[in-house]
Amino acid sequence: MKSVIIHSGGLDSTVLLYHLRALGHQVEALSVNYGQRHKKELQFAARTCAELGISHEVAHLPDLARLLGGSSLTSSELEVAEGHYTADSMKTTVVPNRNMILLAVAAGHAIAQKADCVAYAAHSGDHAIYPDCRPEFADKLAEVIPLADWHKVELIRPFVAWDKAAIVHRGAELGVPFDATWSCYKGGELHCGRCGTCIERREAFHLAGVSDPTPYAADAPKLEALIEHDWRIA
Amino acid sequence: MKSVIIHSGGLDSTVLLYHLRALGHQVEALSVNYGQRHKKELQFAARTCAELGISHEVAHLPDLARLLGGSSLTSSELEVAEGHYTADSMKTTVVPNRNMILLAVAAGHAIAQKADCVAYAAHSGDHAIYPDCRPEFADKLAEVIPLADWHKVELIRPFVAWDKAAIVHRGAELGVPFDATWSCYKGGELHCGRCGTCIERREAFHLAGVSDPTPYAADAPKLEALIEHDWRIA
Repeated sequence: MKSVIIHSGGLDSTVLLYHLRALGHQVEALSVNYGQRHKKELQFAARTCAELGISHEVAHLPDLARLLGGSSLTSSELEVAEGHYTADSMKTTVVPNRNMILLAVAAGHAIAQKADCVAYAAHSGDHAIYPDCRPEFADKLAEVIPLADWHKVELIRPFVAWDKAAIVHRGAELGVPFDATWSCYKGGELHCGRCGTCIERREAFHLAGVSDPTPYAADAPKLEALIEHDWRIA
Repeated sequence: MKSVIIHSGGLDSTVLLYHLRALGHQVEALSVNYGQRHKKELQFAARTCAELGISHEVAHLPDLARLLGGSSLTSSELEVAEGHYTADSMKTTVVPNRNMILLAVAAGHAIAQKADCVAYAAHSGDHAIYPDCRPEFADKLAEVIPLADWHKVELIRPFVAWDKAAIVHRGAELGVPFDATWSCYKGGELHCGRCGTCIERREAFHLAGVSDPTPYAADAPKLEALIEHDWRIA
């Protein structure tokens, strides 16, 4: 099974890489530079692939940021909000139709490579603020993609029924070096520890009972403070 | 009704621009540089929009050519075949999943612009060699796109039941300056008159009974020769 994995360099897609490799897939990683401010994730993606000896392709499509403008993930004029994903402020991180664009590019690349499938790390905790993370959207996309060419490519989402803690748990089993993954939307020197994706990351380690090796910024709130806060850390 | 039209600068999408404008849509044209060798069409698109005072956006995504590689439309190492679309040789012009990528980018842009719909000039003569021109593919895509965001964008295909001759006929009614549109895949000085898209263009004028103002290359076969040939000109 030859699989093209959409690999951001983040925790979920890195575990997916290890997971499919462990299942015997012949994997190729595809990262997309869509003009995100946290381009740093692409360096993490490249490093992981080099480490594993996996072929890694980067689609350089930075003009997407301008075309889909107005998201704090792509515009340096907008601040990335802090706090849990559930906060209204996180809506500024929506990049319109990003997932469909990434999947369409990955499917085209997979067809060109005569791969069998495109895999991405959608999981059950993907958030209501991201409409293109909804299962009904992804289910329909999964019906479209095999029709895109005479060479049939399937869309697979091995983590779709898992939460992020389950992904961390699986990553720990597989010996994923979590500190070689990047989540933070701010793209600073260290993970900020306080934006939506950092909080979610920390929460997942906590819930999975796995020690979090991520170095967070010095001014990041302590895990205990997050737990006491209403940021939904169980 | 605010509409983002995927506008290649070709005949079909130029008539679509005029058609939706005549129906009272507030139109914005979106062209995509996906590394096609016939980039010339983008200049034609820009000129038409300037002429009509229509807003025109170009998505610069040339790295797609490399990622989706191996098509004669994007690779200067491959020759664009000559002869009718029905010929096997035209398969080299397939760009894997091109339409889904264009539509995904256009939908993302339309969401960012708070437009009501994305329109493209798919027509009944679109060819079996292009799997992403099949109605079953486009029908599914039309179900996906409105789910991509809380701001709902519809996919419309006003010409889906028309053949290309009907498009030429409608263009003539609307006074479309056909010589300001570009079809030829070869992207030379003049339309070559002998590649699949040139033959289809000539055929459409012939069938519509509309005089074809396109200047073809000096060595292009005469229309009569195409008719005598088995290139399916009726």
